[in-house]
This record gives sequence, structure tokens and C-alpha cells, in this order.
Amino acid sequence: MDFTELTPDLVPFLGQAAYIQLEMFENLSRAVALAPDLGAKERLSASAGVALRKHHALIEQLRRLGAEPAEVMAPFAPALDAFRRATAGSDWWELLLSSYITAGMLDDYFTALASGLSPDARSRVVHILAEDGGAAALVRELATGIAEIPGLADRLALWGRRLVGDTLLVARSALRSGSSAAADARIEPVFTELIAAHTRRMDGLGLTA
Amino acid sequence: MDFTELTPDLVPFLGQAAYIQLEMFENLSRAVALAPDLGAKERLSASAGVALRKHHALIEQLRRLGAEPAEVMAPFAPALDAFRRATAGSDWWELLLSSYITAGMLDDYFTALASGLSPDARSRVVHILAEDGGAAALVRELATGIAEIPGLADRLALWGRRLVGDTLLVARSALRSGSSAAADARIEPVFTELIAAHTRRMDGLGLTA
Repeated sequence: MDFTELTPDLVPFLGQAAYIQLEMFENLSRAVALAPDLGAKERLSASAGVALRKHHALIEQLRRLGAEPAEVMAPFAPALDAFRRATAGSDWWELLLSSYITAGMLDDYFTALASGLSPDARSRVVHILAEDGGAAALVRELATGIAEIPGLADRLALWGRRLVGDTLLVARSALRSGSSAAADARIEPVFTELIAAHTRRMDGLGLTA
Repeated sequence: MDFTELTPDLVPFLGQAAYIQLEMFENLSRAVALAPDLGAKERLSASAGVALRKHHALIEQLRRLGAEPAEVMAPFAPALDAFRRATAGSDWWELLLSSYITAGMLDDYFTALASGLSPDARSRVVHILAEDGGAAALVRELATGIAEIPGLADRLALWGRRLVGDTLLVARSALRSGSSAAADARIEPVFTELIAAHTRRMDGLGLTA
């Protein structure tokens, strides 16, 4: 697939991806603060560390290009802040599901979109976003809660449906501005794959996607 | 100075030090979330990363010893949670000063107390706690605020005095339980040096200690 027309220029691409990781970090550090026990707190702090490392690695790429990270991220902040507020959830469980679902989808998405960057930039971005280990603690806590708390599975299944819609809107808005209808059509298979991966994540938790 | 009678055994020492870093991380990640602009948010996220790395490095030492980190940290949680609540401050500025002052004093203190560990454990702990880079962003934001906001210096000077008292109480409670009065007297020069370093930090910000 040729993503050249869809992928933003490298600097805004990195700024957007970096800001998303900063928001993921904020969600996860709130999950650490709200954790009901020390084991969960400790495990989630490792997840927060992964998001923070991705953020700093993307920032480092911006610095190498001589860009000022805060300036580059600023235009994306209002929409992404609103996204984070909309997906923060009403309690710890919803926050955990958000952290798992939105980070999973957006990491996948920016990895796909990176195909439109130069080979060199692409391989660095893909390497940064591929760092694993953030999701395991989330899945563990969620699976325990779903098994033990009556009604939680139904509530989280509903919440997951809302998350996927909001996240796809963010993904669509991340496309190069002014891309044509033909270009938009070219991204459709990526969205289809994002939704399929989302369904697998929900299935893995025993939730109806 | 011989700290053998004062320093807790290695496992509780590490648990206590690790939990303190987790609390420092929680404070700093709250400072990230509350930051008034993206530049400050980005710089403070690096400070949060330093505290998180120290936490995880200390946890790693516990794992090497076959200890379960959450279990080892648990006995220290109530007092340290209360300490964090007491030192959280009423706004972003007080939170920043707390993060700077309490982390500075407690890192110095646990570094001193590590003299009572085996040479091998001591050198690992000292190396972990010596990671630098957490304070620079805090000093930068605080210095800017103090220069620009009328009345902030006076308010933070008062707040700093309260912080030093609360932090010394935590430091004293971290001594091996049941240590003798003679042992307690031996720790006094360490407290004197902690207060001197605190005064230098406050002076550096133009605040009366």
C-alpha cells in the first residue's frame, strides 16, 4: 500500500505520535495512583514506564531534526486532550480498558502510517512503537476484575465499543490534511485491520466487541 | 561512621527505598498532569521517568534476592502514603517544591544509610540513587514561577519549612527498629547534613530556608 499521500510529514508525525504517548503515560500514571493494591500499582508502573520511554524516544527523534518538541506537539494537544478526557472512564476499570484499547489501536495505527515515511525514519518509528510490555499488566488486572466482579464484563463491553469509535476518529484526524477521497479510501483496509485487532483484544478478555 | 546498627536489613531497606521512589513518581506524574504548558509537561515527564527508573532498579534488586516487591513494600505504605498526602501541597507550585525537596533529602538520606549495607549492596544502591536529571526541570519551573509571580517566594519559603520537618520524620522512622539512643545519636550528623543540603537547595531558589 502506498501511504505517501496519507502520512503527515515526519516532524508533525513524530509530534503527534509523541503527544499520544504522553497522554497514554498520563492515563497509566493515573491508573498507578488509583490502583487498589500495591501489586497492581507496581505492575502498572512498569506499563507507565513503557509509554514514557516511547514518548521520550519520539521526542529524541524530534530533537535530532532540530525541532522543539513542545512547539511541534502543541497543535495536536487540544484534540488529544479532549480525546483523553472522553476516554478516561468513570472508574479504575474503565481507565484500564481505555489504556489497553486506545494504546493498542493507536500504536498499531501509527506503525501502519509510518509506511509513508522514509525507510530510515520508518524503521526508527516502528522500532520505538514496538516496545512491548505495556499491555501485560493491564490484561492481568482486567482479566482478574472481569472474573471476580459481577456485571463488570457487560459494563466494559459497552465501554470498549465507545472507545473504538473515539479512537478511530483520532486515527482519521491524524491523516495528512487535505488528503483526497481516493487517498482516504486507501486507508480503509488499515481501519478494518485496527477493528479486527480490537475485536481480538476484547475476545481475549472475554468481552463482546 | 558505622551505620551497621542503624541501617535496616537489605530487603526492608530496598522495599522502603523503592516505595519512596514510587511515591516520588506519583507526585511527579501528577505534576506532569497539572503542568500549565506543554514545555513544562514535557520536561517534568523526564523527571518522572528518573524516579520510575530508580523505583524499578530497586525492585529489580529485590527480585534478585527472591523477594516479592509488593509484599516487602506493603509495611511501609501507610506511613509513606500519609507523608505523600501531607506533602502534596495545595497547588502545582507546592507540589513542585515538594517533589524537589523531599526527593533531594530522601535520596541523600538513603545514600548515607546505605553505608550500613554490605559493600556490594551499598555500591548498587548508591549507583541507583545517584541517577541525576530529576531535579533540573523542577528547579527551572520553580525559578521561573518565583521570579514572575508576586508572593510565591514567601508562600514557598513557608511550605519548604514544613516539608523539611515532615521529611526528617520519615527519615528517622526509616532507621532499624529498636536502635539504641547511642545509635540515634550517631545519625545526628547525617540529619545536620540533610538540613544543610536543604538550605542550599532553598538558597538556590532564592527562598529563605
